[in-house]
Amino acid sequence: MKDFTIEYFTMTEQDAVDYARTSIDFFQTDAELSCKEIGDGNLNYVFKVVDGKNNKSVIIKQAGPVARISDDFKLSTDRNRIESEILGVQNKLAPGFVPKVYHYDSIMNCCVMEDLSDHEIMRTALLKHKKFPLFADHITSFLVNTLLCTSDVVLEHKEKKALVKQFINPELCEITEDLVYTEPFYDCPRNEVFEGSKEFVKDHIWNDKKLVLESAKLKFEFMTNAQSLLHGDLHTGSIFIKKDSTKVIDPEFAFYGPAGYDIGNIMANLIFAYANGKFTIDDEKTRNDYLNYLVTTIRDVINLFTDKFNNAWDDKATERVASYEGFKEYYLEAILRDTAAVTGLELLRRIIGLAKVKDITSIQNPESRTRAEKICLTVGKELILNRESIKSGPDYINAIHGAERTSVKEA
Amino acid sequence: MKDFTIEYFTMTEQDAVDYARTSIDFFQTDAELSCKEIGDGNLNYVFKVVDGKNNKSVIIKQAGPVARISDDFKLSTDRNRIESEILGVQNKLAPGFVPKVYHYDSIMNCCVMEDLSDHEIMRTALLKHKKFPLFADHITSFLVNTLLCTSDVVLEHKEKKALVKQFINPELCEITEDLVYTEPFYDCPRNEVFEGSKEFVKDHIWNDKKLVLESAKLKFEFMTNAQSLLHGDLHTGSIFIKKDSTKVIDPEFAFYGPAGYDIGNIMANLIFAYANGKFTIDDEKTRNDYLNYLVTTIRDVINLFTDKFNNAWDDKATERVASYEGFKEYYLEAILRDTAAVTGLELLRRIIGLAKVKDITSIQNPESRTRAEKICLTVGKELILNRESIKSGPDYINAIHGAERTSVKEA
Repeated sequence: MKDFTIEYFTMTEQDAVDYARTSIDFFQTDAELSCKEIGDGNLNYVFKVVDGKNNKSVIIKQAGPVARISDDFKLSTDRNRIESEILGVQNKLAPGFVPKVYHYDSIMNCCVMEDLSDHEIMRTALLKHKKFPLFADHITSFLVNTLLCTSDVVLEHKEKKALVKQFINPELCEITEDLVYTEPFYDCPRNEVFEGSKEFVKDHIWNDKKLVLESAKLKFEFMTNAQSLLHGDLHTGSIFIKKDSTKVIDPEFAFYGPAGYDIGNIMANLIFAYANGKFTIDDEKTRNDYLNYLVTTIRDVINLFTDKFNNAWDDKATERVASYEGFKEYYLEAILRDTAAVTGLELLRRIIGLAKVKDITSIQNPESRTRAEKICLTVGKELILNRESIKSGPDYINAIHGAERTSVKEA
Repeated sequence: MKDFTIEYFTMTEQDAVDYARTSIDFFQTDAELSCKEIGDGNLNYVFKVVDGKNNKSVIIKQAGPVARISDDFKLSTDRNRIESEILGVQNKLAPGFVPKVYHYDSIMNCCVMEDLSDHEIMRTALLKHKKFPLFADHITSFLVNTLLCTSDVVLEHKEKKALVKQFINPELCEITEDLVYTEPFYDCPRNEVFEGSKEFVKDHIWNDKKLVLESAKLKFEFMTNAQSLLHGDLHTGSIFIKKDSTKVIDPEFAFYGPAGYDIGNIMANLIFAYANGKFTIDDEKTRNDYLNYLVTTIRDVINLFTDKFNNAWDDKATERVASYEGFKEYYLEAILRDTAAVTGLELLRRIIGLAKVKDITSIQNPESRTRAEKICLTVGKELILNRESIKSGPDYINAIHGAERTSVKEA
């Protein structure tokens, strides 16, 4: 058995079994352990260690020495510390919405956490057109509790500054700065634009100077606005879900940024699911039924967030100036404006940039995919340019339906 | 002789002599050292150690265990580390505009630095109505070099984030959050309002809901906008000056905040000097001459900052999006807007709040002092409320002259 206490190495499945047996106090002595590496992300190894005899299991997540997404991104393993620590913070603020962490190991850069194999990745489930009627309620509780309660509205300011310091996250933020805020807005060699969308992207994104200027403003917002402790990568691939439970995972991008960033990621990825459903479900009734579910969810995420945010503010704000007449409304408007902008940015970058979503790439018919992409690009652009006036659930629905009408006319 | 290597204690003058002799390699072996504590700030002990024989001297600045400003503020001695480190950064970015640091001692929480006794504190000099025609040029070089060059426009973003982390400064920021952004906007027991101004403050500041709401927005800007590495307390008492030299001292409030904060502090304190000159110089020609000098300086600080900022941006920006059409103008406008707001905040808080400026308190005639205060309050309020449109040197001059006219009508 290798020694886990001296220096870092990337584990094999056998190492993970040994590690689980010796380094944590979780399995019984008679455990019959087996392990499978189940990682499908880009940055980490994920070992599922199962005790077949007593029906217990854990996940060991180890940061690889180099990010898997591409050799361009070399990432320090500090992200694993960040992930373990943020899971602790989130578990306190939003109990039940993140996996429990049993152990963090700063030598092996791994953390041992609750196995959520009875859940499935939300993106995968949505690709099967499954519905989760409790999702909007769950995710808005998570969002309000983690975003508002880590802000200066609620948190004592010296405590907040200590968290800002703890979660300075230069390397992971750089990925976002490049992939979300920079590369999609010019003809960057690393972009991967689908053939059918090339002209549209060139004419309506890269050549739109007003849009490109807005992307620069938003990039600086992202880099400087230390408002809330974000998850930082809250797409539907970072959510484990089943009918009655929603668990937010993979928070290694966590840092203090604009609260709207997390909400906008949720919104955009629901819109991708909508685009997928629209072009891949043949049966009209099934399709309408599914799209209605998504429209309701898209609307509810904004509306429930707004309601819960207002209530939580009234209950939990500790900052004196938070009670000044008009300040809550001003503050919430800024979050909703940022949410609209980030929804737009995420919609654009997943179509134009390096990191794709399966919701779109799995649309087999090239014409359908092109139409789906143009709808996402049109909504994205609209949300960025008109972010000041996108404030409610229905505003998003209108943007989506407007883009659908344009796409029908063009087709 | 006491041992300086074991644990912190506050030094006496004799300790400072011993320290200078044994802990730094500055004085010759035949030095004849004497020392005087010359601190007049609120937070630190300042020892001037002189070698009378060889005509050499240094300053030893030691952080006291408790801030002297009031027993309400208990400050950790970490501020002395921050001061030493920021002086290093500033000296690289704006050489010649800060004192040289010879030594930092993390046990005694002191730093040994260049003696600037041939300079005088700018506030003191201005109270004697001395003129410094090079000041606007000097301070704008300092401001552009420290503010722009520590921002994401110029600095590689991972490097910038490391600096953000290094200069997280919870305790000193709390002082500013309380004294500048909170207490002046309500009838806080710690305020000290001059008898003649009480009614004006109540009617035109505390009861102006629009103004009070703006103060809340600005407080959150201050707490969240990690734009530039600030000095953080850049009033005329933090500047050593002589005809041909300007040295910025006392940067213990340094942290990443909105760039306009430093510029606004300079502006407000020039306006205090103006108010002082207006009401304390009897001879009309001398007075006009001095006020003209200050008006020119007030105008030049904004105008030279703008020119140098534009040039430095073109020369030094490394961030790709900084070259997008319209972005430089957008970015500079935001800095100028923040500058106007902070000028206003500083004008209000020094009149209403706990920490006064001698420019105002030294005006002996109570009626004159009241008029001076009302001018500052009127300008301050105007700059906060109309910050979007205060963009050039002349805009400030107009605000000042407008307030003077109102004050004449009222008197």
